[in-house]
Amino acid sequence: MRAVVQRVTKASVTVGGEQVSSIGRGLCVLLGISAEDTQKDAEYMVRKVLNLRLFEDESGRAWSKSVMERDFEVLCVSQFTLQCVLKGNKPDFHLAMPAELAQPFYGSILENMRSAYKPEMIKDGEFGAFMQVHIQNDGPVTVDLTSPAGPTDPKQLSKQEKQQQRKEKTRSKGPSESGRDRGAPRSKQDPSASSGAEGDVSSEREP
Amino acid sequence: MRAVVQRVTKASVTVGGEQVSSIGRGLCVLLGISAEDTQKDAEYMVRKVLNLRLFEDESGRAWSKSVMERDFEVLCVSQFTLQCVLKGNKPDFHLAMPAELAQPFYGSILENMRSAYKPEMIKDGEFGAFMQVHIQNDGPVTVDLTSPAGPTDPKQLSKQEKQQQRKEKTRSKGPSESGRDRGAPRSKQDPSASSGAEGDVSSEREP
Repeated sequence: MRAVVQRVTKASVTVGGEQVSSIGRGLCVLLGISAEDTQKDAEYMVRKVLNLRLFEDESGRAWSKSVMERDFEVLCVSQFTLQCVLKGNKPDFHLAMPAELAQPFYGSILENMRSAYKPEMIKDGEFGAFMQVHIQNDGPVTVDLTSPAGPTDPKQLSKQEKQQQRKEKTRSKGPSESGRDRGAPRSKQDPSASSGAEGDVSSEREP
Repeated sequence: MRAVVQRVTKASVTVGGEQVSSIGRGLCVLLGISAEDTQKDAEYMVRKVLNLRLFEDESGRAWSKSVMERDFEVLCVSQFTLQCVLKGNKPDFHLAMPAELAQPFYGSILENMRSAYKPEMIKDGEFGAFMQVHIQNDGPVTVDLTSPAGPTDPKQLSKQEKQQQRKEKTRSKGPSESGRDRGAPRSKQDPSASSGAEGDVSSEREP
């Protein structure tokens, strides 16, 4: 699971010219779910988004406070293009979780975020719709997150990060306990289906 | 080198309430340079940003055309926070290229982008300034790019992508030839300096 987290002064989503969602200060999270993601990836992402220290404290000290500690909002938007693999210059999205599985999974991630923080502070886009996401990136401050349970990430982690994760696991009191054990499919996709995605299917899958 | 590439309907940068830059349809590129990046990473990034097929063609076929082929614009903004390493929930930026080296390097990347496309189509933020980056993400469509010469990336590449790169290298006629061989520092940073960055230094480094 990958997320692009942007610190924002404000952000909103419009569909067909109509505003469907908006936040003030906080985080805009573009979330890309891969076909291999499970509840563990979701728990990591919810925990990191809510606890990342991307805000200053009251005295102006940078990188001190999380979105929850500052009582700011989160606008989360599903973004399968983050699971892009480049074939030369052509993006291919066969690693993304298919929409019919991704939609309920994405919904459960939002629910976990709401129960770990406050329901009214977590806003959403419109899954599968063609949206305009208006982002006022504040700084700018942008952070890329990849869940450690993802296929590529363990190699990216420093030793220190792994130790940190173990520590966090042992003292875990995050949204993980309350989360449903969804158990998204770990199995490989049908290779014929994914090869079909190179041409028409990837073209069909509009943002 | 990492980049978050967002397809936009429009985008602009304001500093202190005044607009310093703006584009219409095209790409907003947030670019994070690591201390280990060299001219090779820069060449990859320039080539991918300009040639990535993130736009539809005239008949509406998605993922067909690049920003250059559609004659759209690019707003590029330096974003060292993309070189973030998490220490628990605290971002640490000691992997980012120090600003005094990153500024001329970033400048050379913009120049390469301008000479590979058209100078007037590549807009910039204001290096080191506290900016508001207004992004109207169109879709949304967001792609994460990591240059293959970067420290973590080779493990992320599929076999197919590596083959593709070799192919591209042999028929290379991108901006690489015209680019200056800048030779950014490959040496490790002073460990005392980077450990100092955990607390005060990372706080000092405002976006």
